[in-house]
Amino acid sequence: MALIVQKYGGSSVADAKRIKNVARRIAQAKAQGDQVVVVVSAMGDTTDELIKLAYQVSKQPDRRELDLLLSTGEIVSSTLLAITLREMGYQAISLTGAQAGIRTDSAHSRARILNVEARRMVKELEEGNIVIVAGFQGITDEMDVTTLGRGGSDTTAVALAASLGAKECQIYTDVEGIYSADPRLVPEASKLTEIGYEEMLELATSGAKVMHPRAVELGELFNIPILVASSFNDSPGTLIHGGASMEVRNKVRSIAHDLDVAKITVVGVPDHPGISAAIFQPLAGAGISVDTIVQNTSIENITDLTFTVAESDLAKSMKVVEPIARSIGARECLSDTRLGKVSIIGTGMQNTPGYAARMFGALGEQGINIQLITTSEIRITCIIEESKVIDAVRALHHAFQVEERE
Amino acid sequence: MALIVQKYGGSSVADAKRIKNVARRIAQAKAQGDQVVVVVSAMGDTTDELIKLAYQVSKQPDRRELDLLLSTGEIVSSTLLAITLREMGYQAISLTGAQAGIRTDSAHSRARILNVEARRMVKELEEGNIVIVAGFQGITDEMDVTTLGRGGSDTTAVALAASLGAKECQIYTDVEGIYSADPRLVPEASKLTEIGYEEMLELATSGAKVMHPRAVELGELFNIPILVASSFNDSPGTLIHGGASMEVRNKVRSIAHDLDVAKITVVGVPDHPGISAAIFQPLAGAGISVDTIVQNTSIENITDLTFTVAESDLAKSMKVVEPIARSIGARECLSDTRLGKVSIIGTGMQNTPGYAARMFGALGEQGINIQLITTSEIRITCIIEESKVIDAVRALHHAFQVEERE
Repeated sequence: MALIVQKYGGSSVADAKRIKNVARRIAQAKAQGDQVVVVVSAMGDTTDELIKLAYQVSKQPDRRELDLLLSTGEIVSSTLLAITLREMGYQAISLTGAQAGIRTDSAHSRARILNVEARRMVKELEEGNIVIVAGFQGITDEMDVTTLGRGGSDTTAVALAASLGAKECQIYTDVEGIYSADPRLVPEASKLTEIGYEEMLELATSGAKVMHPRAVELGELFNIPILVASSFNDSPGTLIHGGASMEVRNKVRSIAHDLDVAKITVVGVPDHPGISAAIFQPLAGAGISVDTIVQNTSIENITDLTFTVAESDLAKSMKVVEPIARSIGARECLSDTRLGKVSIIGTGMQNTPGYAARMFGALGEQGINIQLITTSEIRITCIIEESKVIDAVRALHHAFQVEERE
Repeated sequence: MALIVQKYGGSSVADAKRIKNVARRIAQAKAQGDQVVVVVSAMGDTTDELIKLAYQVSKQPDRRELDLLLSTGEIVSSTLLAITLREMGYQAISLTGAQAGIRTDSAHSRARILNVEARRMVKELEEGNIVIVAGFQGITDEMDVTTLGRGGSDTTAVALAASLGAKECQIYTDVEGIYSADPRLVPEASKLTEIGYEEMLELATSGAKVMHPRAVELGELFNIPILVASSFNDSPGTLIHGGASMEVRNKVRSIAHDLDVAKITVVGVPDHPGISAAIFQPLAGAGISVDTIVQNTSIENITDLTFTVAESDLAKSMKVVEPIARSIGARECLSDTRLGKVSIIGTGMQNTPGYAARMFGALGEQGINIQLITTSEIRITCIIEESKVIDAVRALHHAFQVEERE
């Protein structure tokens, strides 16, 4: 008997009616003869409401307490789903992260899964139960409840799939799959039937919000095929896996974009070893994720260092960087928030010349000025004016004929 | 250093403002130099709302799942309280029932505490923390979450006080203490400064809703003084303890009443051994609590058996009793719902004649007909018409001059 893991997001279980809908989908999967483990997020806005409550009593709620508080959201949705399945006549049991054996480190609000002690889950599956697991949470060696941070429930699902040897991890959400570009911006964007782990990772880190890169990485590590599909209809979705066919690996697969970009430039930095570390280690220590980093060639041992962060992190970043800039003798710190990011992604670009030139050309034709450029083996990213991002996505989608992919 | 356990009910932590108020009270207790453990109920109507959610997806929610669902209510209030105390600069940590080591049997929705593994609580107290424990919940050997049923949070508080060797368990609620009668019915009713365990038990089982008898019993068993007081003001409250002074043990201490009474009479029962068991064991099996039982002297081996149950249990009780009555050859089953119960309570009545006669006289003067009478060593209870209960409470309060007690 094979086993599948399904994950349903918060909007899919937002009320009793939607929970019943999800229960019917689970029942269908069970009827196909597989063992089924289901991971759920908290209902609708529950997590936000709990956070609001915490901020009503504290300006900076303690992270351990906040984790325990937030963990209740997924317990509520998972018990309700188990109750619904039992009402429909199915054997089902809900497990908290602790009961499911999800052991994490003790980094509250962003814990990492260390291992899964699957004994209880295996026992419940062997007894014929559909096992519903509260997503986004785990437990430390001290029995303290942790939450996994962004992408937590997806990560729970992939981790359970890996530890239980599932044949597939199915992520059900409010979109129908992975698209060649955001279909709200590019009407002719098409849904991909399949995509490789690396392409999906580049997509996720380049602004596509469908799946968190962390869960994709875990899937790649354990080679778990991940299906991303809608929980509201039976449209086939997109399969993320390692064996994407040769043919489709040959071109640009998708255009990603991100409007939440701010740029910081440290001007007139004396260029000697250790300068980058002096700036970026404190930023990492403050929990700020730095995205693109560009350092120009230095002239007379003086260089400019530019990097991007999320707009929401800009004020915090400037507070960290400005005193450092002074102390290392830089001239000044400049910032700009009206920026966006556009990327073309595809394993087909590896070692194939011409993609960058075509990208810059397509943007130039639209009169779009490129401020920064970064690349990986399978991705080219340009930082441009925020107001030009939509035009850029459309132009690139057309230039690379992404919609003709399949 | 001494230790006190405080318990706050759901109305005391119903919103952020009240949680802050409770936090200030806890801080005062801590400032007096004691170690403090706090047990909280779920905020306001949270438990009812969770139950409503469960009934939206099931006619009869599974009890294990319902317990896990409901346990989230107390986790939310306890984490918020810990966050509030930390915001105020105090060291505080919240613990779930599982983390606090509250081990129970596996009777979901009405679990009994088997023991408390206090190791984690002791560690947190030694580190200087105020320990906030989610009330009403525990965990089985299988790591399944249970709830304790009625009086659950009070029972948690007394159990923790017993296992930690607390000098006092303080139950803060929305009334100011234990009264000589319900002050809403008898304006001259006075608050008792102290009361013995047994008197409190009789009061609690005779209709006074302030504390559940289960928690009082546990307090008596471990000789834990229990203070009942208001969480909204600093009025001194009532101390329930074993050492109530000789002097106040000499009279009727309190008048209790209960409007939620229904009577069932099985008429014409052949009187032979085993008949009572044949009726009352199935009732117990159906989870119905039988209160007063009266069996008349049998005439020609035929007797009538009368007992009372809560009005809400009447329909269920009749369904159980009617087929049994037929099978044992009784003539018929009668029921009456328009009944109430009034009791006089006081250890001073032990072995002292005259109390019963004075009670019956006082009721007779008001033209109140007594349908059933039961007594314990320290209590006399009369079942009367529901519409006469308020008059009866006032008349008895006056007749026994309860208000002049202290």
